[in-house]
Formats: sequence, C-alpha cells, structure tokens
Amino acid sequence: MLLGKSACVLTRRACTSRAVVTVRRYCCQKSPQKLRVTEALSSQELGANIKIKGWVRSIRSQKELLFLHVNDGSSLQSLQVVASSELNVRGLTYGSAVEISGDLVKSPHKKQNVELQATHIQVVGECNPVDFPFKIKERHGLEYIRQFPHLRCRTNTFSSLLRIRSEATSAIQSFFKENNFVHIHTPVITSNDCEGAGELFQVEPAGREESPDEENTGFFDVPAFLTVSGQLHLEVMAGAFPRVYTFGPTFRAENSQSRRHLAEFYMVEAEISFTQSLEDLMMVMENLFKSATECVLARCPEDVELFHKYVAPGTRESLDVMLKNRFKVITYTEAIDILNCSSQNFAFKTEWGCDLQTEHEKYLVKHCGNMPLFVINYPYDLKPFYARDNEDQPCHTAAAVDLLVPGVGELCGGTLREERLELLRARLAHAGLEDAYQWYLELRKFGSVPHGGFGMGFERYLQCILGVENIKDVIPFPRFSHSCVL
Amino acid sequence: MLLGKSACVLTRRACTSRAVVTVRRYCCQKSPQKLRVTEALSSQELGANIKIKGWVRSIRSQKELLFLHVNDGSSLQSLQVVASSELNVRGLTYGSAVEISGDLVKSPHKKQNVELQATHIQVVGECNPVDFPFKIKERHGLEYIRQFPHLRCRTNTFSSLLRIRSEATSAIQSFFKENNFVHIHTPVITSNDCEGAGELFQVEPAGREESPDEENTGFFDVPAFLTVSGQLHLEVMAGAFPRVYTFGPTFRAENSQSRRHLAEFYMVEAEISFTQSLEDLMMVMENLFKSATECVLARCPEDVELFHKYVAPGTRESLDVMLKNRFKVITYTEAIDILNCSSQNFAFKTEWGCDLQTEHEKYLVKHCGNMPLFVINYPYDLKPFYARDNEDQPCHTAAAVDLLVPGVGELCGGTLREERLELLRARLAHAGLEDAYQWYLELRKFGSVPHGGFGMGFERYLQCILGVENIKDVIPFPRFSHSCVL
Repeated sequence: MLLGKSACVLTRRACTSRAVVTVRRYCCQKSPQKLRVTEALSSQELGANIKIKGWVRSIRSQKELLFLHVNDGSSLQSLQVVASSELNVRGLTYGSAVEISGDLVKSPHKKQNVELQATHIQVVGECNPVDFPFKIKERHGLEYIRQFPHLRCRTNTFSSLLRIRSEATSAIQSFFKENNFVHIHTPVITSNDCEGAGELFQVEPAGREESPDEENTGFFDVPAFLTVSGQLHLEVMAGAFPRVYTFGPTFRAENSQSRRHLAEFYMVEAEISFTQSLEDLMMVMENLFKSATECVLARCPEDVELFHKYVAPGTRESLDVMLKNRFKVITYTEAIDILNCSSQNFAFKTEWGCDLQTEHEKYLVKHCGNMPLFVINYPYDLKPFYARDNEDQPCHTAAAVDLLVPGVGELCGGTLREERLELLRARLAHAGLEDAYQWYLELRKFGSVPHGGFGMGFERYLQCILGVENIKDVIPFPRFSHSCVL
Repeated sequence: MLLGKSACVLTRRACTSRAVVTVRRYCCQKSPQKLRVTEALSSQELGANIKIKGWVRSIRSQKELLFLHVNDGSSLQSLQVVASSELNVRGLTYGSAVEISGDLVKSPHKKQNVELQATHIQVVGECNPVDFPFKIKERHGLEYIRQFPHLRCRTNTFSSLLRIRSEATSAIQSFFKENNFVHIHTPVITSNDCEGAGELFQVEPAGREESPDEENTGFFDVPAFLTVSGQLHLEVMAGAFPRVYTFGPTFRAENSQSRRHLAEFYMVEAEISFTQSLEDLMMVMENLFKSATECVLARCPEDVELFHKYVAPGTRESLDVMLKNRFKVITYTEAIDILNCSSQNFAFKTEWGCDLQTEHEKYLVKHCGNMPLFVINYPYDLKPFYARDNEDQPCHTAAAVDLLVPGVGELCGGTLREERLELLRARLAHAGLEDAYQWYLELRKFGSVPHGGFGMGFERYLQCILGVENIKDVIPFPRFSHSCVL
C-alpha cells in the first residue's frame, strides 16, 4: 500500500507515535508479582499477591467454590487454584489458557504446600473440550498421543519427556565442556558417504527445472547428502585439538518403521587425539553415560519418576545398579563363545565373523548381569575402512568397541582410527575409494596422530534411562518412512 | 574369513587373551604427568616431570640447543620446549606431531613463565614441510587458508575461531538455561515451507530409481525439505511451555556466493509464551547478545584478541560501547524518515512500504551512533502470514522487530505471532495456505496464547563480535552454491 508523497508524511507521523505507544505501554503496567508455576509452588512468601499464566489441567466446580489445576510447563506439577464460583467465567474449561492473579496461601491439603486464592481469572485462549483430543482425567497412552504431534506436548507425559530431553542435552554438553572438549558444528550437508553403507538422503534445490547441465552438477557441483555421522569431520579437528565433540541430527533413509529406527535422529560423537587405547574411549563413554544420567535424575526427579512409575516400572532400580557398578568388558570372540554356549535359539547365526544382531546383544547384556557391556575387537572385515587394524591374524580384528545396554542393545559404537598412512591407503585403494578420500589421507600425511572416537545415539540413550519402548516417543517431531508430519 | 569349527575354537582362545592384553596394557603404564599445553603454561609446579602431546608450530636449531614451540589446540599459546641438539630426531619438523617429556622449569624469557626442558622427544606423525600448505613463521590470510578445509584448523587464526565458536555456543546455551528456556530439537527435515518465500532444498533417498508411484509420494509420502526455520515447531511448544529455544542448522538454497550467505548456517531461535509486547522480545535479544559476548570475552581473551588485533582492529572498542549502552529503538516509519533525510544516494528505494536493504541497515546503525538498533513495526504487507497485525490502518504495520548491528546489518528478526484464530485463518485463506496449515490453526483453537519469538543468525553474531568480513571464515565447513567440500 503506497500513498502519495504528502499524504504519507502526515500518516507516517501518526503511525510513528501510535506504534511507539503500543510498545511502551506494557513496560509501565503495574501488576502483581509474575511467577512461573514452579516458582509459586516452592515460594515461601505466603500472602504474596501473584499472577500466574498457564493452561487448565483440571477443573472442578462445587456449590460456592471452583477448583482448578493450572500448569505452565515449568514443571510436571500444577498449581491448585481456589476461586469463588463467581469467577467461573465463560470459556474456562479443561485445556483453556488462563491468567490468574490472587494470593498465595498455605494449602489445607497434604498434596501441596501452597495454593492460589484467585481474585481475578482471565481466559486468554479458549479450548473446546469436545474437539480437543485429550480428555480431562484420562491417562492417554503414548501411542494415542503420538497421533497429535502438534498437541502432544500438552500432555503430562510428553511435556515431562521434553523437559528431560532438554536437561539431558544440557548435561551432555556440560560433561564435554568440563572435560575440555571443543564443540564442533559438523555439517549436515556433506559430499562424503561416511560408512559407505548407509542408506543416504540426497539434497537438491526444490522445484528446479532440470537442465542437462544441472543434472550433472547440481547446486553444489557434486552430489550432496545428509550426513550419517560427523566422524570424518571430527577427525579433521583431531589434527589440531586434543578432544572434540559434536551433537546434532544425523540421517538414514532406512525404509523401516520399527521401534528402533528414525530417518532423523540425534547423535553425540566424540573424537580423542593421542590415544592408542580402547580403554580411553570406554572410559569417556562410561563417564558420559553416568554423568549425564546422574544429572538428569537430580534435575528432573518428578519428570523421570513419571516414566519409572507409569511407563516402565523397574527401570529405576536397574538404572541404579548401572550407575553404581563398573561396566563390563568382553571381546567379540568371548561374546561369540557365550552365545554358542547358550541354550537360546537365535534367528541369526553366531559364528565368528558374523555381526552381532539385536537379539544377540540383548542376550549378552542379560548374561552379564543386565549391566551395560562393552564388546571389543570385532572382526576386521565387519568394520569400515577407518577402523584401526589390530594386526592379529589369523583371527583378524579391528580396534572397535560397542556399548550394549539393557532394553536397547547397541547404544554406542566406536573405533580407534587407522592413523597409519600406508595401511589406510591400501584399504581405501582396495575399496576403490582412494581418490574420493584424498583429503582424508592427507590428514595422515601432515602430523598424523593416533586417535579414536565414538558415537552415541541420543534417542536410544533416552529410551534406556526412561524405559521407553518406541523411539518415536523420545523425539519432538519423529521422521520415518511414510511420515514427516509438520 | 571363516575358519573350520575346530580351528576356530583354538584361534579364538588365542585371540581373546591377546586382545585383552592389547587393551589393558595402557592402563598399567607408569608415565610422567600428562598435561595439556594450557595446563603446563599455567602450572606452578616447577621441576615437575611432565609429558605433553601436540604439533610443532616453530623449530629453531642452535649449535647445542633446539627450541620448539608446541601447540595442542588447548589454547592459542604454545609451550616453548628447550632440548639438547641430540634430541633433534628424524622427522622433527614444522607441522609434525610429537610427544615430549621433560621437566617444567622457569623460563628465562619474559614472554612465558615456564618452559619445558625436554628429556625425550618422539615424533608420532611426520609432516613434509614442502607439501604442507602452511609455512613456518608466515601469517596466512583467511582467504588462503579457506582453500584447505581439512587442514585450516591447524592455523592459529582458525583454531582460535573454533574455540571461540565453541565457547559462544556454550554461552548461548547457558543464557537460555539460566532464563528457564526449554531446549527443543526442532527437526531438520520438514514438510513445511515456513516463510513461503525461501529457496528450499528438497530431500529424497539417494540413488532411487524413480517409479511413477514414488515420483508422486517419495520416501515420506509428502515432499520433504530442509528447514529454513524452527519457528513453527517452536510455536507448537509455546502451547505448553513458557519459554523454549532451539539452536541448530538451517538451510537456504540461495544461489549466492556473497560474503553474507551460506546454504547451511546456524540459527538460535526463541519463542516466548504469554507476551503481547515487542519489548519482551527485545529484552531477550539484547540480554542474549550482551550475556553471550561478555562470556566469550571473559573465557577466550587471547583468541578474541587475535581477531581484534590482526583481523579487524577497532572491533574491541566498538564492542565495549555496545556492551555498556542500551540498544536503541526506532520504528520502521522513523527509519524511512531518517533514510529520506540523508544525503546518501542509496541503490534501493526508501519509500514507506519497501523493505530495508543492507545498505539502509548499515546507514541506520551508523546514524544511531554505531550501536545495535532495533527497528520495529514493519509494514504488514512485508511480513509473513504469522506476524501479528497491529491493526493500525492506514499505515498498516505488523508487530515485527529486526536487530541491526554494526558491520553486519540484520542480526536478529522477530515478530509477535498472530494468536487470534479468525485473523490468522483469514490471512492463510488469502494466501491459499489454509489447508496446509490446518495444524497451525489448531494451535490457536485449543488454548491459544499471545506469544512471540525471534531468530539470530549465529554466524552473523560471530562476524559481528570478531569483525570477520566473510561468513565462510566463521563456520567449520562452509556450504554454498558450487561448494560442498568434504
């Protein structure tokens, strides 16, 4: 809307002052003390005039009194509000958004210390309880709420999950920071195919008319994929820093709708320079798991309890055992022996040289006391080109380690990396990859150091500590084959 | 390599014990105290027998003595090593990786407190100085080192940048955590096109033979893109939490090789519930900028000084002014007035209703004392469907705010979101988007709250505080049109 020059000067002035008033208005407002629900719940200031904002999680009307529970997402607990029936304004229903002021008083009930005696209730956003998919006083299952990705954060279970996920993220970052790791943002778009095996997503500008030229080169002049791992990029950094890590989304175009797989999931990956020892890697993995878990248990006790009480009873006890004891270590060869001595019938072969399947991993974990278990020194031929050769023919192994945990199976996987130029060159040449990985060979040409690292699936970590069976229930917006909602 | 059953049992046993020995060996080793270079530099334990590991950054040989500087990435500073010439082993060159043990002694030189008197030097990775692209004692420009994405972390400038980036990441996360924001991992792959305007990347499994069926539906059954913003997903969360944020990669398929654009860049995005005020958003933006910057200056003084001394002199003084003063606020309409009163010839029009271009933004920042500047209340027609209508005809504006900063122009952009169902529905219908955004309308149907948020370009933030001109120099692995290296 363009106005003529002179008209515009006038209206402009008018607009300017009005707009500024709109903005300034709010900072001059006098109001009761604004508190988050969690702050109100732990407040010692009885009698204080406060204001809370949140969503109605329960509503009960008696003759003269109205009882509400209001939650604002700051904690699992809601604040009980008591009001005269006269304040029962239109639109005040389960699910509606409200602003309530009043006085914080001691609660006569044992369940809570304080409650809010409301003097003013305002409904800022109505919620038709008939259309709203969640019903008052019903405990909806994870599978049911999963159908509403834009609304499921409004349930107790999923808002607890999101607070836990946020704390776990922070705990993992703190662990690495305290241990002097430099945080590196490894790229999502890459021209590498790290494992040479993953099902990759390819990236191209949308809606491009393909011309013969572009068909060959594309936006980046080379085929570009979504990363399956930040490892190779971390290895670049391992040539200049003692310890680096990354924590971000990774991708697999696996056509699976299993409870264990997502097309987009989060990985924590670390790379440590100047190490020749799987022990070093195992120590970091074990400390990471324990430190992050202790932190989450301490910071979100109620949210975690919800899962341990209603979703997966028994998980807490099992977790306490894991935290108190050292993780066990066995070799791949010992693992194969254990499997072969077992009376269980496995669907997959358990011969030396075959990869361990989830059924094997779960058996091994149980066999070893339902404790996290490191399996080390896998057959050389099972591991990708970057795994360090143990040079231990005839049973030829690579310096690789997996961490298996109860309920989940493989949680972490790591290797020492082949830092010896000639061995690496020979293996890449054998795989026909020498040209593509010239830059990777150069890392070994200029001041190469023995190094190693590992990756931990963040969703699997959350599944393990919470006892959640389906990986789709521990990520805000799950992406998998046939599903990319929102 | 599969062996016959009986052969395998024998070799398996042999492998098992050997493998365990390999792993355990290292934890029994007695050795001098292992220190990172930064720990050695600040150590008070003169005479201590220590071991450091790192890369040779300088080497100078005198008749009987050898002087090295060794850096391990733990800080910008290197440790001076003094050794007898006899320790000048083969392969000890600039760029090589070394392990050195010896005694930490007081340094006779003023530049450092301590130095290492070496008793043992081992070259663990050689480096041919002729092939290595960085040369001893040369200060390589940012443009030169950018050619070697796999090696540039080995230069002082880029390793400083990476330490600063890591600290800035941590400072931003701490800011949000301290202010009770829940960290949400918004998805990279999305079926939304948030702004309806961005150049999108599309995602499909690689190497799929397109069948007529798949052409229509694809892996996810719907077209899937790389996210341009996590805003809409954060708005989902704003229906259950008071404050949420996300910090991750976002994507634009812009065919630009400018110093300001990347195809993959990092965004910090925040969403605040129960706010009707741009002031609230501006306060968070200003506090975020100041808090993160003060943190980075305090934690990486030497790394930051390198940039302020050699890359962009004057930046520190300008930064100190920004940190000490309140950011200014003007309306878009005032901004247009200022531009029209200026004597500068702009390439783009400065009429009410036209978007502000970088040249305008930079002029406004200079005009307002070279200080960060909020511009608020932009023309309604310039803003996307979700921006809240100020209902201030005839000069119709939306409740939007941009933060402009010296050297960069736009650093942050935010809006109050249209929380009123009928206004939002009308605008979406007008744009033909009502069906696609049914879920977004539902957020307003069930307990809608006034809310708003903003995004900050993380690379632009780093450019601003460090004075780095080219955005490719503040990200580990830059992706842009015609370039996706590694």
